[in-house]
Amino acid sequence: MKQSLKQIPGSVTAPQGFLASGVFCDIKRLGTGKGSNKGKKRDLALILSEVPATVAGMFTTSQVCAAPVKISTPRAHQGRAQAIVVNSGNANACTGAQGLRDAQQMTELVAKTFRLPIEHVLVASTGRIGVTLPMPNVKRGIQAAAGLLNTFPENAHQVAEAIMTSDTRPKEIAVEFKLDGRIVRIGGVCKGAGMIQPGMSPSGARPATAPHGGLHATMLGFITTDAAIESKTLQAALAEAVANSFNRITVDGDMSTNDTVIVLANGMAGNSTITRARRAELAQFQAALNHVCLELAKMIVRDGEGVSRFVTVRVNGAKSFADADAAARAVANSSLVRTSWFGGDPNWGRILGALGYSPAKIVEGKIDVAYSAPAGKKLLYALKQGQPTKTSFDALCKMAAQKEFDLHINLNLGKSNAVIYAADLTEEYVDFNKGDVSDPASLGG
Amino acid sequence: MKQSLKQIPGSVTAPQGFLASGVFCDIKRLGTGKGSNKGKKRDLALILSEVPATVAGMFTTSQVCAAPVKISTPRAHQGRAQAIVVNSGNANACTGAQGLRDAQQMTELVAKTFRLPIEHVLVASTGRIGVTLPMPNVKRGIQAAAGLLNTFPENAHQVAEAIMTSDTRPKEIAVEFKLDGRIVRIGGVCKGAGMIQPGMSPSGARPATAPHGGLHATMLGFITTDAAIESKTLQAALAEAVANSFNRITVDGDMSTNDTVIVLANGMAGNSTITRARRAELAQFQAALNHVCLELAKMIVRDGEGVSRFVTVRVNGAKSFADADAAARAVANSSLVRTSWFGGDPNWGRILGALGYSPAKIVEGKIDVAYSAPAGKKLLYALKQGQPTKTSFDALCKMAAQKEFDLHINLNLGKSNAVIYAADLTEEYVDFNKGDVSDPASLGG
Repeated sequence: MKQSLKQIPGSVTAPQGFLASGVFCDIKRLGTGKGSNKGKKRDLALILSEVPATVAGMFTTSQVCAAPVKISTPRAHQGRAQAIVVNSGNANACTGAQGLRDAQQMTELVAKTFRLPIEHVLVASTGRIGVTLPMPNVKRGIQAAAGLLNTFPENAHQVAEAIMTSDTRPKEIAVEFKLDGRIVRIGGVCKGAGMIQPGMSPSGARPATAPHGGLHATMLGFITTDAAIESKTLQAALAEAVANSFNRITVDGDMSTNDTVIVLANGMAGNSTITRARRAELAQFQAALNHVCLELAKMIVRDGEGVSRFVTVRVNGAKSFADADAAARAVANSSLVRTSWFGGDPNWGRILGALGYSPAKIVEGKIDVAYSAPAGKKLLYALKQGQPTKTSFDALCKMAAQKEFDLHINLNLGKSNAVIYAADLTEEYVDFNKGDVSDPASLGG
Repeated sequence: MKQSLKQIPGSVTAPQGFLASGVFCDIKRLGTGKGSNKGKKRDLALILSEVPATVAGMFTTSQVCAAPVKISTPRAHQGRAQAIVVNSGNANACTGAQGLRDAQQMTELVAKTFRLPIEHVLVASTGRIGVTLPMPNVKRGIQAAAGLLNTFPENAHQVAEAIMTSDTRPKEIAVEFKLDGRIVRIGGVCKGAGMIQPGMSPSGARPATAPHGGLHATMLGFITTDAAIESKTLQAALAEAVANSFNRITVDGDMSTNDTVIVLANGMAGNSTITRARRAELAQFQAALNHVCLELAKMIVRDGEGVSRFVTVRVNGAKSFADADAAARAVANSSLVRTSWFGGDPNWGRILGALGYSPAKIVEGKIDVAYSAPAGKKLLYALKQGQPTKTSFDALCKMAAQKEFDLHINLNLGKSNAVIYAADLTEEYVDFNKGDVSDPASLGG
């Protein structure tokens, strides 16, 4: 199945029937009085399907959730939508009643422009917390973006740029595969670099069986596909894809008030509509969606604020998934483990320390710790059954000096596994996030 | 009551009948082949009571706990002891059966020297994880320290120095107060700078009702008193004092495998033995012990690795203590909040973000956030009922620019409160902890 999945150029305009654009409208109010806007990073984007699409969404489970999340969640639940409007530079979070009116107005402006029902327009925001949106700028931005909508790859690229905040590069992907003899495409863009440990659910509600330590970025992800798929099936497919991708990453352990992933499926590929009953087709679609989400999620970690190393933490042999997840997150979020990764230091003492205080059940004398190349089969053991191996310190250092490596932890207590995609903690992260109080516009979420 | 509590010079030898010493015996095996040991930091210490004392202890609740913790926990439970031996430079953690034999032998060497029952000697270690102790050096150290035991303040100071690892300064305190017409003294030393978020219990067992997020340094604390106090009463008093001091601090959110606080009470002050029934005397002793533990705990945070600011996070109005504690820890351990403190940035958006993902029940529209001087009554509100106040950004910045300030969060949902003593996250912390792989001796827990 995977063999038939082909990576193609472009992103959200790669599937048939999707238009996009991104513009600069000065959401941060840097001032545009004099001169042109040339060279300014875009900060507002539109994605539009030529025809009404099925829609699904995953939203932050933070108890402090931004106005756009409150507006988009019920609309994603209705299952039908046609457009997404998104801005960077301002999260429209902690903005009270005015924030809700502004988010609502953003969707209203788009709906009027394209003569859509307002409920068919979703909205997302990222940037500073606690400041209301400059609505005249937003309005100008939406009008300008509407006039520039097109299906070119360059238009999708504008979206990827417009949603960036502290990201150093745009994040895009597109794939195609065959279904019912038809070519189906999925394209996606995302953003996120700090405040990253998403824990999203379809309704923003926390699952009753939340993993130990709770769910824990602003990350935004927008996915388009020309597949025909029934809306509840699409929601279940997105939930599964996010659970194994965006909800498995951490940069700094901070979950955001704005995390959002939205998928639009407009059916223009002409395949027979995918439903839960059509298992083979669903499996193919799921595999493609999983691939798109996982690749986008990894791009976020690799481009995380100040990140110099990408570490895949693999916990095996836990008593339960909750334990495996808690153990992996304790290691992936430990300041001491993450600074040792920055130093290229294969410090298994700090790893055992983090496992020791994790809520996961562990037995010191049973733990194996090993390193490998990314997705490598050859494991270099540092610890077996809780005891240091004869592996040379130099060999371990060589592995930990790589830009990317896998850390394998086997608790040897059960059959449950969990993976967390993590990053090191660097001086650059601290420098970046300490802000500049002389420039209030630089501060915030 | 507090008025009668007097701070006096010295520390663990201030109470009657306590001797102490600290020596350099090269636990890290830096090599001492040539020349003298002058100028080398001491790394092994002894504390001895002239007579058998009651003892109580609090130990890490990490599931990976060091050999000295395993040896000392049951001995503290027996309620009687006379000596403590402690080393820095090596945590004797993750050292298997050999580690247990070494910890046992340390106590045996002390017991033989002073003709004590072996169970009357407790042991503690701090330093690198996963390396066995250089026992010939330890043995030389114990012999040398035994020969130097004395009651001078300088001897207590040697202990404070010998237990330091990444600490930049020794941490000592002593107080005296009157009980039954007798002068009673309590003295203490402690160490700790990184891997600091202790969660200790008397048995090392996690309480069934662990606060959300679990319990979370190596920190070591040794307290001596000449008060006469019954052993179970002493254990309860220590548990209360630690719950409100060492268990309320965090530097980096990492709990250690070695956290230990031990108190010896030798009764030489001549007061009538304190029991639970003697409420007034117990209250006086408790207040003094609380003061000693809290002052020592704050010294750890102020001297935390790379710490430039000391922030007291006060959460009020929570539905339960578990919620108040979880909310305070979420804020105090957030990388984004801590880097904003480093920058002197009164970033309430990140504070709301951390509260949002905390497992504590919160309602965004009810939260007040304010700043004050340390223990100050005049609150400067940044946020009331979830909305920004008219307080000027400059005024908030001025407060956040202080080396020490209090952060007040009122959830306005209930009557429970919690305080966490926290620190900023700095480039110096990252630089210090990234280690130096060219020098394996610099690495570890």
